[in-house]
Amino acid sequence: MPEPIKKVGDFAHLDMDRATRRGYPEAVYCERKTVEQVGAIAAALADSSHTTLFTRASAAHLEAISQAVDAFVDAEAGFAAYPATPPEPTGEKVLVVCAGTSDLPVAREAEYTARYLGRDTRLIADVGVAGIHRLLSYEQTLHEAGVIVVVAGMDGALPGVVAGLVKAPVVAVPTSVGYGAGAGGIAPLLTMLNACAPGIGVVNIDNGYGAGHLAAQIAAR
Amino acid sequence: MPEPIKKVGDFAHLDMDRATRRGYPEAVYCERKTVEQVGAIAAALADSSHTTLFTRASAAHLEAISQAVDAFVDAEAGFAAYPATPPEPTGEKVLVVCAGTSDLPVAREAEYTARYLGRDTRLIADVGVAGIHRLLSYEQTLHEAGVIVVVAGMDGALPGVVAGLVKAPVVAVPTSVGYGAGAGGIAPLLTMLNACAPGIGVVNIDNGYGAGHLAAQIAAR
Amino acid sequence: MPEPIKKVGDFAHLDMDRATRRGYPEAVYCERKTVEQVGAIAAALADSSHTTLFTRASAAHLEAISQAVDAFVDAEAGFAAYPATPPEPTGEKVLVVCAGTSDLPVAREAEYTARYLGRDTRLIADVGVAGIHRLLSYEQTLHEAGVIVVVAGMDGALPGVVAGLVKAPVVAVPTSVGYGAGAGGIAPLLTMLNACAPGIGVVNIDNGYGAGHLAAQIAAR
Amino acid sequence: MPEPIKKVGDFAHLDMDRATRRGYPEAVYCERKTVEQVGAIAAALADSSHTTLFTRASAAHLEAISQAVDAFVDAEAGFAAYPATPPEPTGEKVLVVCAGTSDLPVAREAEYTARYLGRDTRLIADVGVAGIHRLLSYEQTLHEAGVIVVVAGMDGALPGVVAGLVKAPVVAVPTSVGYGAGAGGIAPLLTMLNACAPGIGVVNIDNGYGAGHLAAQIAAR
Amino acid sequence: MPEPIKKVGDFAHLDMDRATRRGYPEAVYCERKTVEQVGAIAAALADSSHTTLFTRASAAHLEAISQAVDAFVDAEAGFAAYPATPPEPTGEKVLVVCAGTSDLPVAREAEYTARYLGRDTRLIADVGVAGIHRLLSYEQTLHEAGVIVVVAGMDGALPGVVAGLVKAPVVAVPTSVGYGAGAGGIAPLLTMLNACAPGIGVVNIDNGYGAGHLAAQIAAR
Amino acid sequence: MPEPIKKVGDFAHLDMDRATRRGYPEAVYCERKTVEQVGAIAAALADSSHTTLFTRASAAHLEAISQAVDAFVDAEAGFAAYPATPPEPTGEKVLVVCAGTSDLPVAREAEYTARYLGRDTRLIADVGVAGIHRLLSYEQTLHEAGVIVVVAGMDGALPGVVAGLVKAPVVAVPTSVGYGAGAGGIAPLLTMLNACAPGIGVVNIDNGYGAGHLAAQIAAR
Amino acid sequence: MPEPIKKVGDFAHLDMDRATRRGYPEAVYCERKTVEQVGAIAAALADSSHTTLFTRASAAHLEAISQAVDAFVDAEAGFAAYPATPPEPTGEKVLVVCAGTSDLPVAREAEYTARYLGRDTRLIADVGVAGIHRLLSYEQTLHEAGVIVVVAGMDGALPGVVAGLVKAPVVAVPTSVGYGAGAGGIAPLLTMLNACAPGIGVVNIDNGYGAGHLAAQIAAR
Amino acid sequence: MPEPIKKVGDFAHLDMDRATRRGYPEAVYCERKTVEQVGAIAAALADSSHTTLFTRASAAHLEAISQAVDAFVDAEAGFAAYPATPPEPTGEKVLVVCAGTSDLPVAREAEYTARYLGRDTRLIADVGVAGIHRLLSYEQTLHEAGVIVVVAGMDGALPGVVAGLVKAPVVAVPTSVGYGAGAGGIAPLLTMLNACAPGIGVVNIDNGYGAGHLAAQIAAR
Repeated sequence: MPEPIKKVGDFAHLDMDRATRRGYPEAVYCERKTVEQVGAIAAALADSSHTTLFTRASAAHLEAISQAVDAFVDAEAGFAAYPATPPEPTGEKVLVVCAGTSDLPVAREAEYTARYLGRDTRLIADVGVAGIHRLLSYEQTLHEAGVIVVVAGMDGALPGVVAGLVKAPVVAVPTSVGYGAGAGGIAPLLTMLNACAPGIGVVNIDNGYGAGHLAAQIAAR
Repeated sequence: MPEPIKKVGDFAHLDMDRATRRGYPEAVYCERKTVEQVGAIAAALADSSHTTLFTRASAAHLEAISQAVDAFVDAEAGFAAYPATPPEPTGEKVLVVCAGTSDLPVAREAEYTARYLGRDTRLIADVGVAGIHRLLSYEQTLHEAGVIVVVAGMDGALPGVVAGLVKAPVVAVPTSVGYGAGAGGIAPLLTMLNACAPGIGVVNIDNGYGAGHLAAQIAAR
Repeated sequence: MPEPIKKVGDFAHLDMDRATRRGYPEAVYCERKTVEQVGAIAAALADSSHTTLFTRASAAHLEAISQAVDAFVDAEAGFAAYPATPPEPTGEKVLVVCAGTSDLPVAREAEYTARYLGRDTRLIADVGVAGIHRLLSYEQTLHEAGVIVVVAGMDGALPGVVAGLVKAPVVAVPTSVGYGAGAGGIAPLLTMLNACAPGIGVVNIDNGYGAGHLAAQIAAR
Repeated sequence: MPEPIKKVGDFAHLDMDRATRRGYPEAVYCERKTVEQVGAIAAALADSSHTTLFTRASAAHLEAISQAVDAFVDAEAGFAAYPATPPEPTGEKVLVVCAGTSDLPVAREAEYTARYLGRDTRLIADVGVAGIHRLLSYEQTLHEAGVIVVVAGMDGALPGVVAGLVKAPVVAVPTSVGYGAGAGGIAPLLTMLNACAPGIGVVNIDNGYGAGHLAAQIAAR
Repeated sequence: MPEPIKKVGDFAHLDMDRATRRGYPEAVYCERKTVEQVGAIAAALADSSHTTLFTRASAAHLEAISQAVDAFVDAEAGFAAYPATPPEPTGEKVLVVCAGTSDLPVAREAEYTARYLGRDTRLIADVGVAGIHRLLSYEQTLHEAGVIVVVAGMDGALPGVVAGLVKAPVVAVPTSVGYGAGAGGIAPLLTMLNACAPGIGVVNIDNGYGAGHLAAQIAAR
Repeated sequence: MPEPIKKVGDFAHLDMDRATRRGYPEAVYCERKTVEQVGAIAAALADSSHTTLFTRASAAHLEAISQAVDAFVDAEAGFAAYPATPPEPTGEKVLVVCAGTSDLPVAREAEYTARYLGRDTRLIADVGVAGIHRLLSYEQTLHEAGVIVVVAGMDGALPGVVAGLVKAPVVAVPTSVGYGAGAGGIAPLLTMLNACAPGIGVVNIDNGYGAGHLAAQIAAR
Repeated sequence: MPEPIKKVGDFAHLDMDRATRRGYPEAVYCERKTVEQVGAIAAALADSSHTTLFTRASAAHLEAISQAVDAFVDAEAGFAAYPATPPEPTGEKVLVVCAGTSDLPVAREAEYTARYLGRDTRLIADVGVAGIHRLLSYEQTLHEAGVIVVVAGMDGALPGVVAGLVKAPVVAVPTSVGYGAGAGGIAPLLTMLNACAPGIGVVNIDNGYGAGHLAAQIAAR
Repeated sequence: MPEPIKKVGDFAHLDMDRATRRGYPEAVYCERKTVEQVGAIAAALADSSHTTLFTRASAAHLEAISQAVDAFVDAEAGFAAYPATPPEPTGEKVLVVCAGTSDLPVAREAEYTARYLGRDTRLIADVGVAGIHRLLSYEQTLHEAGVIVVVAGMDGALPGVVAGLVKAPVVAVPTSVGYGAGAGGIAPLLTMLNACAPGIGVVNIDNGYGAGHLAAQIAAR
């Protein structure tokens, strides 16, 4: 019987029971943790059979993780996963769509998360509403997805347009891309919460991890 | 071949193609529409075979709808549906949970929406986190749901606790119940967006309709 | 020579020179003025040859205006114009488009203002982005306008989509239609300020008058 | 027939059809794009006959652009244009006015944008309302412009005063110049949205590009 | 020796020593006090020789005051003063200027306060910046004042323009007149705090009493 | 053994175990509950030996409570308690101090709550910082309290001054008394959170119940 | 007799009387003070018998303090105390609980403050609500504390859950850990102010010092 | 006759007439100006007989000013004045009081401004309300001032307490000292606008220059 809680130093209680209880792996949020703390947590997981994700990791965090275990690492997305090989995909396909090139790091965090939670994924970039025929040229792909994660900054209008076209549920991720009034992601967050088309669940600004997790749960069946 | 757009007076373009395109019925948002406008829209739908929902309807709106067509009506939730009989349920079960008695109108709007979109539903009221054993006494029910809509005002902590217990995706609805700092639903909205447990998609404050719609889509398969 | 400033009681200085200086008529903002004050201002204008607009007028304000002069009045839009007959239209056409039926009062204020400032106008209602083919069925009309006023509440995404389709400048008007986070028009205002498509000038929330005025100036040549 | 969408790597879909559809060139928003991405986009455009603008570019971005194509570059305004020579001006004159010396980078972005979209431009700096005779000494120039872009930070009062003096439409740009309450441009943005004088269209804070684009459209005829 | 603190019921401690200590009378803020409480306070003051002001009083409050003592009352400004006759004016003149007719109630509260604190006052209404020659026609009057109270809603630009013209200090009062973004007085408050011209002290939104009090203190010498 | 959870209709789960678990009674928040729901809850408690509080109750709520059980009722504070007689006081004294007469309803809610939770209480009204000698005349009383609840609106400065004078912990309650910038209690809330003197715990705006509860817990020993 | 106020240079007035008046030591807030100023203050205290705390100190501040006096120093918490040995503990136990590893620096500031004010303390880390059994495994410890300081960022739900379990008062500290909407601690602050469970006093974001001080006062008896 | 407007390069219009018109010198706001621009402006003023102030100047700005003219410079306050010798003081005394040591740079900017505008000044530091006897020990000095500038961050309660003690007008300056909710000066700004004691004019956050200027105008007579 696995010990449900694993203590690391005097600073962490790992929730080893989570994969059993919820069916999804533990994730370590690295921001504001010291490099030493993240390294120690990675080492404590080395002999675990569970998948573990590391999010919002700095270059130094990723280096510490790589020294402790053999992990998949993407510096631009601040993401690592252990073990490096994702599980065999099951369930429906998770499609990730992003409005601009600048939204890519968040979109990739969403895609990696869904993939390491066991889903087949695809990412389409730079199809924002200012030139709506770019999006429409992928309409068939949109219809085939079991769930669509839509990532957008600035006006955040893309999820509403996508949701108006498809049957599948949409997970919307506002990004902090943009400037001026409503900067830091507030403008696209409000747009997404107020979208006229129903069928959209919103996660926090820049929270690609949360979006990928929710999408993987929706696409599980 | 059904006409895709139906014009009502000079004030509305009904999207009759929506059920075909998205698989879900049209909904009429009544707030700020005149009683005459809502009545005319209801009348225009009378010979349609599609289900239609009416949301955020005042007593006068509901009266006008009832005079035009034979609809299901709940005044407390500001909701009507035509035809009055919901479709035969398919897909997984939608469970709606609300934190307090005061959140009931929004929870009911979510439940009705999912039901008229073709899902089997159940509602559990008044199980907020201040006495967490109330929620835990329903743990088996939580595990059986295909998707859980969690409705909460004040601190909005309930969706995070529920999401931490189950495999199913959670749709979180902040309500405008509460007062003081963060009143009008801002406090629970922020709590839900920042929930530590992943697996939560948030809809706008008091948007029971949007939550029920998203839940019905998730539970469709 | 006309007197440039006309004093009314001890509470108003009418800018009679404005039509000469700016080429556009004086407008009286009625909100928070007493019925007596608005009536006295209307009476003071009775022998003027200039067009005068009255905006954000209550039913009582409109009644007082009608008793003083022979004016055009629309209670839903809170608008009056004197004299009642608009000038012969000149310049390019002003097209007003609104996203939902609930945005109509603001859209009408914009249309009336442009008309009484001397432009030919047309209004299309209820063509929001949740069913984008409703808008696209009017594409030819969009291309023929000299300037397009786009009125939208909720997510405010319509102006960005319109601007991405046409050569003409767009004047965007957020409305206070909607609820929850960003209610009162803040959500569509931010969306419009952050629209990815350039070519949009934004006016204040619910400010149909300001939008119609700016559109009339743009379409003058 | 030109290919309407040009893919660059897996991160960009260039909207090559935009000049045909809207009559105005594509613009590349550089912020949060990597230097490599911007360089690759510039290279992909090298054999295009269309004008392309680059906005909010860092020194490294500008260096990458210059290595790929022969472009006009202004580091202070974070702006580049390709080809380097602007088109022959047509339409009415675009006048750019700014309140303080600190607003100059934003004002220049507006002026360059209008110029590369084909308008004749002029810029007057440091004529804020604290010493209003500075502005009034340019009154004749104000009357001759087809459209006036007014750039201001701090109290943002300049557009309202300018709009009260002229027939031409005013495009107002709040800047993030200033400090304390309403810093980051919120104070001048609100002032401009609430200006008593009608005839003002507002763009986002520091959005000189958007202002120049809208002004060029207005002055086209 | 006067008793410094006078208890009224169990709900008020009147600061009778204030006129001695600060040189200015006690003021009773009526909002949220019951009619009975205000009446009892007025009665308790009846035999005092000190001037007392009552601010933000409802019609019922004013009625209760009038029944208790022989007071000056202005319902529009929600103001009363006892005794009814103001003191003989001393010090410099206090000029009150307001931007629009709708700002008059706040402007009158400021004027009455300064007058009952012993200053000579004058009020000029409806001279906002949209037609700046209305203000300039009073330039001589502006130069003669010892202090100028400027009351403005909407864009709140008037105090900055006035301060740029005169030697005297300016007390700026934002009003809640206006709508949309920054409504409730936030927009003019921010404008006034960020005014480019120095020499402005700002009071709270709609706080005519505070402005009149400060102006009276400044003009005392 | 008492049943820990008592179901009332399908809308409430009463936490009967709370008094045992936490040592303090259940409280029923009445806002947004129907009169029928509150009445049914009161009736369900009639045979319980536990004290129960009702907060934010309207006149109709209080009437329904009184018809169901023999309760203490204060309409101004929107408060009821059952049984009507408070328990014999234990622990240290709870002193409630409020800044202005308008803060009295909130102060009374705090006092009643502490009293029905078993403490000896005292209330001092109208001793705000504008005339600081009013507060200082009660200095001995301040020193004798085991805990001090300080209730204040407007600038909210009173808790910081009180905390700087005494050994006892201070519970600070901002009220929604005041107007203009920071209205609705935001201004005093921020003041209290930023008080220079340590020793202050803040509760939500107008939350007299929460303050009285916390004070009763602190003073228990 | 001790001198109540000690002047240091022309920049500080030390409140030497505070320990006598309030029973708790002076604390020096180091942020925005120069290194020289902090060093001078530390030196001025060298011959005092009173305990002094230094909070929000940079590495350079701590170095200057260490050179002046023999102090306890923790760089991660930005904290120093003089003299280095805490007083013998009295009163009840102060338990500090934090939700995540990233909240540790604030939690330690709270713990040190309570310890140097004379209380026995214990700290438990990383027991957030996403895996609630981690918290429940410490339930006995929670019941034994005289007061519990709960430190949490992100959704800030932990204090409400803790307060619902125990008799003791809870001091809640929101931290600036988290990102997106409500970042910088606003989200957990609002959650804590709106917690459904009563018995919580909130201090400012990241204010571990204030929480530890209040907890020490509560646990004094 | 002096030229009223002096052009510097194409980036500045100096208002040379200001001293004549308003009686107070020009001030150059350095933030966001380049070092070259500030140096050029300083050089252009070198042969002027007027006093000129430079505010919010960086070390590089100050260096450029010193190379151009012989100026008084204070790097901590970001302030310079030319010529270096202040004028002979006239009018009443300006007293500057600040709450904490961290507020000193802003307080000094206020004091220097008043001094170079021709007033006699005095500065008292670190007398905040947490230990109110520090302030009271200077009560006689407070009564002798013609105007008092009060500078405070954090809770911003000091101006209200000072205004409640004296006859003279108070100019309140919120500073950005503090952290957490209401950081950046919003908390003290709101406190000052809502102060219960009348007689306070507020300037923008950290605006020591504006406060010193207003104080100098008030104390002129």
